[in-house]
Amino acid sequence: MTYDEARALYPVLARFAYLNAGTLGPLAQPTLAAMAERDRFDQDQGRGGRAWFDGILALRARVRGKVAELIGATPENVAITSSTTDGCNVVVAGLGLGPGDEIVTTNSEHPGLLLPLHVSGARVRVADVANRPTAEALERIAACVGPKTRLLALSHVLWTTGQVMPVDELKRETGLPLLVDGAQSVGAIPVDVGELDFYTISGQKWLCGPEPIGALYVRDPESLRIAFPTYWAQTSIEPDGTFVPRDDAERFATGWTATRMLAGWETALDLPPEWHFERAAAITEHCRSELAAICEVIGEPSQGTLVSFAPSGDPAETAARLYERGVVIRAVPGTGWARASCGWWTNEDDIDRLVAGVSA
Amino acid sequence: MTYDEARALYPVLARFAYLNAGTLGPLAQPTLAAMAERDRFDQDQGRGGRAWFDGILALRARVRGKVAELIGATPENVAITSSTTDGCNVVVAGLGLGPGDEIVTTNSEHPGLLLPLHVSGARVRVADVANRPTAEALERIAACVGPKTRLLALSHVLWTTGQVMPVDELKRETGLPLLVDGAQSVGAIPVDVGELDFYTISGQKWLCGPEPIGALYVRDPESLRIAFPTYWAQTSIEPDGTFVPRDDAERFATGWTATRMLAGWETALDLPPEWHFERAAAITEHCRSELAAICEVIGEPSQGTLVSFAPSGDPAETAARLYERGVVIRAVPGTGWARASCGWWTNEDDIDRLVAGVSA
Repeated sequence: MTYDEARALYPVLARFAYLNAGTLGPLAQPTLAAMAERDRFDQDQGRGGRAWFDGILALRARVRGKVAELIGATPENVAITSSTTDGCNVVVAGLGLGPGDEIVTTNSEHPGLLLPLHVSGARVRVADVANRPTAEALERIAACVGPKTRLLALSHVLWTTGQVMPVDELKRETGLPLLVDGAQSVGAIPVDVGELDFYTISGQKWLCGPEPIGALYVRDPESLRIAFPTYWAQTSIEPDGTFVPRDDAERFATGWTATRMLAGWETALDLPPEWHFERAAAITEHCRSELAAICEVIGEPSQGTLVSFAPSGDPAETAARLYERGVVIRAVPGTGWARASCGWWTNEDDIDRLVAGVSA
Repeated sequence: MTYDEARALYPVLARFAYLNAGTLGPLAQPTLAAMAERDRFDQDQGRGGRAWFDGILALRARVRGKVAELIGATPENVAITSSTTDGCNVVVAGLGLGPGDEIVTTNSEHPGLLLPLHVSGARVRVADVANRPTAEALERIAACVGPKTRLLALSHVLWTTGQVMPVDELKRETGLPLLVDGAQSVGAIPVDVGELDFYTISGQKWLCGPEPIGALYVRDPESLRIAFPTYWAQTSIEPDGTFVPRDDAERFATGWTATRMLAGWETALDLPPEWHFERAAAITEHCRSELAAICEVIGEPSQGTLVSFAPSGDPAETAARLYERGVVIRAVPGTGWARASCGWWTNEDDIDRLVAGVSA
């Protein structure tokens, strides 16, 4: 498949310079068609009957398999969720942390991770890494680890700057449980969960699935309490709620997922061409260098696929102005920055439109 | 609107004797159209820009308003969730119960409630009410209350027998926090939250919305810890996760809800004709008496809109056989019963087809 053929699958790209996959990825025509087809199928089947339900179980299994393949895992270690926030809540609540415990994170995390950390009751220690040289991140984060640290919890790719955090090295160096927020990594850069304990995945961002869908990788399901059980948690249950958990990570699944969303995500997961990571990295660098000619660009090259920059005016106003010109980006609250998300589908014309809009 | 006009809005009813709203309600053509229209709108708008996002906030607010109206509440006390299970988890975890505490429930609850109760660590005391005279339920449940009871948690309508539990009387008599699982009540029978503390609502069953969607009523948001926070929980947040909660129950919302599902549910909530409760009650009684002529019917008349019965063979096989005849019902695991769900849209022909299938 050529680049132009692959890009042409995403209708929104014909109208917009769509640079917002860090929020919601573009939906491909085959993904939209798979969802519409599944809607028709469900209506035809009356959403009932054993075959219909067995078909959903098989669909869930296929999606888990494809997600596992993406991150170097086995399907047994993957649960379907609605979001990375869900995954973070499941893990942090499941670890049963509380006062007296400490969690180490960075100063550039999304509320979807920070909120669960805060409500755990543990003390949250914040390493200063954002807008510092990425090469210092390992040392800065490790320096916050102490005898009370029970969890390291951080993004693989920072949502504000696109910096790639040294998650594997942190695991090796500390040996502590590591929760990785993968919202801005899976689908954007190569990911292998390796020795990591918990890894959250967003379906609707770089993997171009429908919203809201996601997944959670759990290295050892037995090590984590089921804090937010749903029907998927159990294989049998007593009248007082005592239950036999299912034997894999799907016990942590956060609820029923609409069949159309499973069908759409399954299709979306098959679409990226082989060369997609290389292309995404290249167009991200192109975006950085073009923007650097007209304003300050945040962070460093060769990180994730997010490019934050400091427009001359208010970033929210800049984003609104660009939207009127058909360029979709977002502001990063509290930073003075706007952020462009570069996918493998992004082309040079998109970047030209971005630069023209920022300059205007 | 006449009965036939109202029924004709639901395409699945033209093909199936669809008696499974206790699992998933029928979807109306206007609901399906609203979702397809919203999909087109989102694709046209590129799922970005301030106006798009503000529109979603307004849509969420309208849905919360309509749900509140259904249950005699104000919108400020309603959060959007994905399911009743979500709501039960949010409430039980938020109460921070543990060993030494007791929860009282019934012996006929769904895993979506029982699982959260169990993982709380509290002792779960189970009142024997299923298949006993409903008039005894109040006394039987109240008899399980003791000095360590911190929560009563039970269904308004039991999913196995359709019995209506005396939730208001329990609140009045015990004064204890009461969590009501409204999966089989809201949309099926008149509901007013009155003095109840927590009430979960399913959008995809009797309210005929898309799956998975729901809501949670919280009488006093300040009384409940936010145990599973999502982006909706906060109005501002610090780098260590400390946050200012929003001032209403939407702080308990369990995550992003697909715009198409909000649009679909909004439409679905407007569809039931004024006379729908009366009609649902009447057709339920008709179903009971027709089935009673050929097999044992469980429970009592004048309860909810679920009719469980004991077919001569295995209930799962009965359900499968009926599905082949275009009659959609389900088995109730572990009981020897099958269950027919009667909605206001159900007609006498549906019941004839059910009875013919069960007799065959």
